[in-house]
Amino acid sequence: MQTLESISADRINALFAEVESFTDPDFDGWTRTVFSSPYQEERHWMLRQFKDSGLQNVHVDAAGNIVGVLPGRNPFADPIVLGSHTDTVERGGRFDGVVGVLGALEVVQRFRESGRLLERPLMVIDFFGEEANPFGLTCLGSRSLVGHLAPQDLERINPEGKRLGDTLQAFGMDPSGILGMSTGRPAKWHAYLELHIEQSDSLEKARRDIGVVTAVAGIKRLLARYLGQYDHAGGARMRARKDALLAAASSALVLHEFACGNPGYAVATTTHIDSLQSAQNVVPGKAELRAEVRSTDSAWFTSVDRELTQRVSARAHEFGCDVDLEWFLDNEIVQTNSTLQQNIVDASQSFGLSWMAVPSGATHDSVHISRIAPMGMIFVPSVGGRSHCPEEMTPQRDILNGIRVLEESVRLADKGPLPTL
Amino acid sequence: MQTLESISADRINALFAEVESFTDPDFDGWTRTVFSSPYQEERHWMLRQFKDSGLQNVHVDAAGNIVGVLPGRNPFADPIVLGSHTDTVERGGRFDGVVGVLGALEVVQRFRESGRLLERPLMVIDFFGEEANPFGLTCLGSRSLVGHLAPQDLERINPEGKRLGDTLQAFGMDPSGILGMSTGRPAKWHAYLELHIEQSDSLEKARRDIGVVTAVAGIKRLLARYLGQYDHAGGARMRARKDALLAAASSALVLHEFACGNPGYAVATTTHIDSLQSAQNVVPGKAELRAEVRSTDSAWFTSVDRELTQRVSARAHEFGCDVDLEWFLDNEIVQTNSTLQQNIVDASQSFGLSWMAVPSGATHDSVHISRIAPMGMIFVPSVGGRSHCPEEMTPQRDILNGIRVLEESVRLADKGPLPTL
Repeated sequence: MQTLESISADRINALFAEVESFTDPDFDGWTRTVFSSPYQEERHWMLRQFKDSGLQNVHVDAAGNIVGVLPGRNPFADPIVLGSHTDTVERGGRFDGVVGVLGALEVVQRFRESGRLLERPLMVIDFFGEEANPFGLTCLGSRSLVGHLAPQDLERINPEGKRLGDTLQAFGMDPSGILGMSTGRPAKWHAYLELHIEQSDSLEKARRDIGVVTAVAGIKRLLARYLGQYDHAGGARMRARKDALLAAASSALVLHEFACGNPGYAVATTTHIDSLQSAQNVVPGKAELRAEVRSTDSAWFTSVDRELTQRVSARAHEFGCDVDLEWFLDNEIVQTNSTLQQNIVDASQSFGLSWMAVPSGATHDSVHISRIAPMGMIFVPSVGGRSHCPEEMTPQRDILNGIRVLEESVRLADKGPLPTL
Repeated sequence: MQTLESISADRINALFAEVESFTDPDFDGWTRTVFSSPYQEERHWMLRQFKDSGLQNVHVDAAGNIVGVLPGRNPFADPIVLGSHTDTVERGGRFDGVVGVLGALEVVQRFRESGRLLERPLMVIDFFGEEANPFGLTCLGSRSLVGHLAPQDLERINPEGKRLGDTLQAFGMDPSGILGMSTGRPAKWHAYLELHIEQSDSLEKARRDIGVVTAVAGIKRLLARYLGQYDHAGGARMRARKDALLAAASSALVLHEFACGNPGYAVATTTHIDSLQSAQNVVPGKAELRAEVRSTDSAWFTSVDRELTQRVSARAHEFGCDVDLEWFLDNEIVQTNSTLQQNIVDASQSFGLSWMAVPSGATHDSVHISRIAPMGMIFVPSVGGRSHCPEEMTPQRDILNGIRVLEESVRLADKGPLPTL
């Protein structure tokens, strides 16, 4: 005879297997990037799953979010909302985002099967296009839903020269409708909860089942442009050079060392270094570096751009180069709601699961949703901390633990009042 | 009344002005790359200049070299040959190569006007396509002339996917004729002399008029491929990372420091660092680095690849990465002919010009020609050592000094026997 847990396990396994099948065959791992055919096909399939799970009023909103509601006893109460995303990066994994959406659907199934009606409506959302895309704008769906997509964002151009607005339209969405979303929707949600893989190895290293997210890291992005001097690679003496690529390479090490110096959660990643030349016999006179820094440490995060500008400039000058640093604030640090934190702790303990407080280094749809609702996040372990790669792995047992804690946290949030934002 | 020197100055100025006019308007500086229209047009013009200079048997050989001969008293004697090139890099300068070709034409004019007939024929060559090109093969004309263009070289593909053989044909040349050049021509030249700008700042710093080149640097090229581990840039802890881009950046500094450690002439230049990814939120799991090293120091040059492979690998391992280093020998170190060196010294001293022995960091057509003839090179100063850039500059006075020394060196070589190769 099957237990409730084994029914859950079978059901969730079947769904994961189906989602995995939607992947771009031209890439290793799992690739379901926003605006791609595999993503489009997976979304059609997902819309059916929402309906098959017994959710009502299932629809795709103006921003491409797939939405459905499990009615509660009080149809007028503010809903509790569960969500995440099912798009991936190129050569990504099977769990990032997907755990949260399939987990939410499983929670809906369980509530329906148990016959235990919630007081409040329970809404589930598969947010549109959470991952980074060539337009440089993450979290398209959740950002739009809270009215954070600006008209000028639709004018963003990808490397192929296409407008974001046109690309959304070609994917079946109505850009003017997106801009009207926040004005038309005075969204007021009782609570937002997101189940997600940790994408780091704190839980695994500490052998804990559940991560109670305390804050989502702020992100600042850097574009550094170096100006040295082009010279013949055979002619210019080593000590007479103004090698812009060397200045950039050296900056990557400066960024790395600076982040290593923070005892808490702070990371810096140089993702691109480019000498902007094709010639193989020229001392690079120009170079560019792209990097990002993240932290949940407010003091560090506030001053990191000033500190790094100083250090990177000093290092560039040692190589005879000038450098212009442009910093972009991607996300401020976002704290999670303390009552929801406590609910997640209580839920974990009620099942005898071990837990720990963790920061989220990755950005999530929850960052945007935190503008309109008390927000909480539940993390489950990532093997080796690996994510955004084919090796991304969370064992089934951990996923089921996460679903149980999510379900119980919904129940706890449904009972009590929550502090306002 | 005009002196011979002022006539020379006016004549050479007019020719420089005309060569400068052949440039690709889409680029800053001077751009006359091999296979481009501006280069084609300049070559048509140059062919006329060869004829107008009074050279005989002016023709374009199978490899695209423009060739002409000033007859001597003995038509059966091995010729003295002067040459250089008139193609440029992208965004290059006005003097690299051009000084040697226009200088040789001026020497011809002077011999003709003076009525002082040489014993030997004096041949002038504008070598085809000396600069680096997208097929990765420099010195197309001089390489072909000495039979160093191999059949498989014609199969080289540029980034647009075109064969070198087809590209040569489209530019009006006969690839099978090129391959037949060396067999059809048991070239035996008495001497080869090339006037060129220094492309470094040794002469300027030492305030010398003439550089007597002792050797042309050998070149080894490096392609290093790093393998680390892709990770989420927000999730992976700093100390748990295997950041391939950081390993590559660090290698660039290793290469730089290693070359700085040589007290003689040795340079190392990293020209490209690439994380091979578009994502801005992923710790680079792969990276590539391209670099080159040059030296005239045989001991250093022989062991540099072994030494650097060791140091770069060690540094990559510190960042948790593996690295595969592939070295390509581009040119061996080539010594110039000692009698021609002495001729250049004597010629300089006869005009009261100061001189010094210098290495050539840059490769020249002379490297290939040294296979079939005693070879010598005369350098004139480069302002600030700048080359392969629009700022490349050699004052008129220095160019005229170089031409006088070239003329006198030809006369000295014409008189005496030269040691055989």
